[in-house]
Amino acid sequence: MNKGELLYEGKAKRLYATDDAEVLFVEYKDSATAFNGEKKQDIDGKGNLNNQITTRIFEKLREAGIVSHFVKRISDNEQLVRKVDIIPIEVVVRNIAAGSLAKRLGYEEGTPLERTIVEFYYKDDNLGDPHITTEHIDILGIATAEEVDALYKQALAVNDVLQPIFEQVGVQLIDFKLEFGRDVDGNVLLADEISPDTCRLWDAKTKQKLDKDVFRRDLGSLTEVYEIILEKLGGK
Amino acid sequence: MNKGELLYEGKAKRLYATDDAEVLFVEYKDSATAFNGEKKQDIDGKGNLNNQITTRIFEKLREAGIVSHFVKRISDNEQLVRKVDIIPIEVVVRNIAAGSLAKRLGYEEGTPLERTIVEFYYKDDNLGDPHITTEHIDILGIATAEEVDALYKQALAVNDVLQPIFEQVGVQLIDFKLEFGRDVDGNVLLADEISPDTCRLWDAKTKQKLDKDVFRRDLGSLTEVYEIILEKLGGK
Repeated sequence: MNKGELLYEGKAKRLYATDDAEVLFVEYKDSATAFNGEKKQDIDGKGNLNNQITTRIFEKLREAGIVSHFVKRISDNEQLVRKVDIIPIEVVVRNIAAGSLAKRLGYEEGTPLERTIVEFYYKDDNLGDPHITTEHIDILGIATAEEVDALYKQALAVNDVLQPIFEQVGVQLIDFKLEFGRDVDGNVLLADEISPDTCRLWDAKTKQKLDKDVFRRDLGSLTEVYEIILEKLGGK
Repeated sequence: MNKGELLYEGKAKRLYATDDAEVLFVEYKDSATAFNGEKKQDIDGKGNLNNQITTRIFEKLREAGIVSHFVKRISDNEQLVRKVDIIPIEVVVRNIAAGSLAKRLGYEEGTPLERTIVEFYYKDDNLGDPHITTEHIDILGIATAEEVDALYKQALAVNDVLQPIFEQVGVQLIDFKLEFGRDVDGNVLLADEISPDTCRLWDAKTKQKLDKDVFRRDLGSLTEVYEIILEKLGGK
C-alpha cells in the first residue's frame, strides 16, 4: 500500500491517500497539544506509543464485536484505516468526575458519578468545542436523530468493553472522547484514536494519572505513563 | 394580608412570609444586575414596571390555562404568590439566536433557529449557572425525569402562548428564561417572573431591543423600553 497525497494534518496525526480510495494511511505525530492548541510540545516516541495503544484497543473492540475504521498497524507510527467523513461531534463518556465536568458542575475530581453519562461537544476549534445537546445538533444540522442515537449507543458499548479490560489491569477508565465518521454507505463508524490522549486513565490503587493530564498539568514524563498503559494492554 | 418575616433577598426581588403559610409576598426591587451580578445599578421605577409586566403575563398565561405561582398584584411593586421550593434549573426557550447561544455556536444574532429549542442551566451562582443536559440533572439529583419532562413541556407551552401575544403587538419573542418550583403537593409549578429582565424582546420591524440587553450592553434607558413593553401588553 503506497503512501499518497497528504489529505489532512491535525494536531496529533497526518492522513494520506492510498492506492485504495476507501483506505487511508494514518501517521501518528510526536506532538502533544492541550487547551485547544495553546500548550504544545514535541515528545519523542509519543506517536509510536499512541499508534500501538490505539491499535491494541481497536483490536480488542473488534474482538468484542465493535467495528471501527481501524484496518491494521503497518509500522511504528503508521496504520491503515477505512476512509470516513468525520462527524463534527466529540462524544465524551464519563464514569467518574474529572476535568471540565468536575469544574463546571462543582464535583471533586475522582467522585464516581451516579451513572455513566454521555456528552456531546461541537468539534469547532474557533468556538472552543462547545458543549451541546441533541437539540443543538438538530438546529446545527450536523447529524440526524438516528445518527445521534447511534453515537450514543456505540459510545456506551465501547465503555462496556473497555471498562472491564482496564479494570483487570488495575486501571480506572475515568472518561474518554470518541469521534465517529460516515463510511461510503453512510453508516456511522467509530473513528479517530483511543489512547491516553483521548482517555483519562488512573491507577486504581495509587490514583496516578496515566494519560495526557500528565502533559496538561506538568506531572512528569508523558511517555513513561503511556508505556505503562501499553504494557498493561499486553504491548512489548 | 400582612407582610411578615423577610425570607429571601435575591438580585431583583425580596420574598416575605404572610399570614398564610402557603402564600408569599414578593417585593420587586429597583436594582438591575447582569453578568452574574458583576454589573449592577439601581434604576428608579424598574421594580414597578417588572411587577406590572409580570402580572400581565401571568394573567394572560392563566387565561390560556397555564397555572403559575402568581396569585395577584397588590401594589405598585408587590404581588402575592403561592409558596414553592424553587427547582435549581433555569429553563431557557429559544426561537431566534441571540446572547450566549449565538456566541457559543457561532450564529449571527437574529438568525431564526430551525426550530424552537429548550435548554437547561444549573442555577448556581458560584459555578456561573453552567449549561447542563438531562443526564447532568440526573447525576446531580436536582430533579426527577418526570419533573424534567414537565419543565420541558410547560416551557414550550408558555412559548406557544406568549409568542403570538407579542407578535400581535409587533414584538419578537427571541428567547426567555423560566424558573419552576415544587408546590406543597410536589407538583411542578411555573414560578419567578416573566419580564424584560428574563425575556429577549425585539421590535419586529426596527429590531430595537426592548429588554435587559439595553442595560447589559449600555443601549439607552431601560425604563423607557420596559414602558414600551408594558404599554404593548395593555398597561397604562
